[in-house]
Amino acid sequence: MASAIKQMNVRGAPAIGVSGGYGVALGALKIKAASGNEFIRKMRKVIEALKNARPTARNLPRAVERMERVANEAVTEGKNVDQIREILVDEAKKIHTEEAEATYKISDFGADLILSGATVLTHCNTGPLATTGYGTALGVIIRAHEQDKEIKVLADETRPLLQGARLTCWELQKAGIPATLITDSMAGYFMSRREVDYVIVGADRIAANGDTANKIGTYTLAVLARENKIPFYVAAPTTTIDPSLASGEEIPIEERSHDEVTGFQGVRTAPDECEAANPAFDVTPHKYITAIITERGIIQKPFQRGIGRVI
Amino acid sequence: MASAIKQMNVRGAPAIGVSGGYGVALGALKIKAASGNEFIRKMRKVIEALKNARPTARNLPRAVERMERVANEAVTEGKNVDQIREILVDEAKKIHTEEAEATYKISDFGADLILSGATVLTHCNTGPLATTGYGTALGVIIRAHEQDKEIKVLADETRPLLQGARLTCWELQKAGIPATLITDSMAGYFMSRREVDYVIVGADRIAANGDTANKIGTYTLAVLARENKIPFYVAAPTTTIDPSLASGEEIPIEERSHDEVTGFQGVRTAPDECEAANPAFDVTPHKYITAIITERGIIQKPFQRGIGRVI
Repeated sequence: MASAIKQMNVRGAPAIGVSGGYGVALGALKIKAASGNEFIRKMRKVIEALKNARPTARNLPRAVERMERVANEAVTEGKNVDQIREILVDEAKKIHTEEAEATYKISDFGADLILSGATVLTHCNTGPLATTGYGTALGVIIRAHEQDKEIKVLADETRPLLQGARLTCWELQKAGIPATLITDSMAGYFMSRREVDYVIVGADRIAANGDTANKIGTYTLAVLARENKIPFYVAAPTTTIDPSLASGEEIPIEERSHDEVTGFQGVRTAPDECEAANPAFDVTPHKYITAIITERGIIQKPFQRGIGRVI
Repeated sequence: MASAIKQMNVRGAPAIGVSGGYGVALGALKIKAASGNEFIRKMRKVIEALKNARPTARNLPRAVERMERVANEAVTEGKNVDQIREILVDEAKKIHTEEAEATYKISDFGADLILSGATVLTHCNTGPLATTGYGTALGVIIRAHEQDKEIKVLADETRPLLQGARLTCWELQKAGIPATLITDSMAGYFMSRREVDYVIVGADRIAANGDTANKIGTYTLAVLARENKIPFYVAAPTTTIDPSLASGEEIPIEERSHDEVTGFQGVRTAPDECEAANPAFDVTPHKYITAIITERGIIQKPFQRGIGRVI
């Protein structure tokens, strides 16, 4: 599971949180131990591997730490190894259910912000494939469409891994929502022509002040949205919020393989020996964000206070 | 030649201007005519095909119109068909020489703006391959490097056709300039981290007020540069300036094949039947531009007045 997360066979902050929970459960099923304490000792390796599979999304360590806490409690309560295993499988399923349910609520709250006739620009992939539920940013869009609002979507292709082109366009097709694929560099063009009414994105980690780490390119969209007076919404479950970080500057940004940038799905595009950079996320300072849509409601500014209330 | 321009076998505003001149000359060499007037009549088809091969870059129609004017003058002066052909070949060579020489001057003027130790971000490809000379934006960078300034470059890959990854990185390697390839969506990240000292781009058409059409994504870079207080320079020969257009709103923007966006080099990324958009250029309003570097000097604000002086 850790390698599936690393290689992004599963991706999206809520989905990798859920996968982290199941990863611990899968590990627990394989651990051989005579006592609860031995079990916990052996489980620590599983915990570490999963927690560190990717560094930016808050949902992953949060889910794994929750699994760890539950295991520790079970040992303290004198449960035997079989019971602990069962408790962990149940807890992983509970995390899954909660994350999925959160996306339905996010979608409901967010859809209220979307007026019929709107064109929504989104980045990366934040639908069912990324969340195990309904979606965050894409959930809001799908829900608004189901409410019979006329919605059109501009989907950023999202280089380097093209989640927008590969996944978001596919999910929008399945949902029957008119979508137009654009390169990331075209978002500004359409905003400046007043062809975008809202920008909605997901999140990988949100600091206590509302600063939001999300897929590389999100900061750019936020700056462009403010410049063009377009509302910029972040949609994320509260499991993405990390109140231990005062601001976005403290959020660790994953640097991924440069091969993702020097080529395009296996087609090498840059010359040999070409240097590249590949930060997978950027941080959008809270001042660019209009509101944060969570399963506990829509957080308006000042975010610090609102975030304190939903956590 | 018209189809080589259309298919972007040759691209870059100055290079397609030069190609337009040679295209008329090549056409002229094949025209069979008994009189100058018949020659001109037959040449009109060549002129139209070349002038309309691509709509945005000013250099192309400017060069073709110049060839047409020269041919008309030769007929008026009573030259015979062989003489007209020779005059047109000479004129095409002259356009080539002038465009190439302009890039050396642009590079000299521009290099004065670049301090040693700087990291320069650039977009698309604006070097020798795009200009038949030294380059515009890339010429400035190469010249600064030749002046022994320590220069590093961040090169946007420039989707959809990846001229940055394929061409700019190659030209920078040949010039021995340290370069790091990034996706277009990463430019904002590096600007916000204060890792970019200048943004320099080329241009396809500049209106009388300084509004500049350039490769899609340029407007976004300009907004990001202003937001992060980074100088944003446009480097272009005066042949790119179109004083007949009051503002950038009048610049025609080419829409290219959607296949360029739904995949790359034959690798399809979007699902079948996926809609896409492919504006090849955008317009950067003059307020975001710090200065325009031409072969006749650096135009500072107000651009309207400066442009009037160099035209």
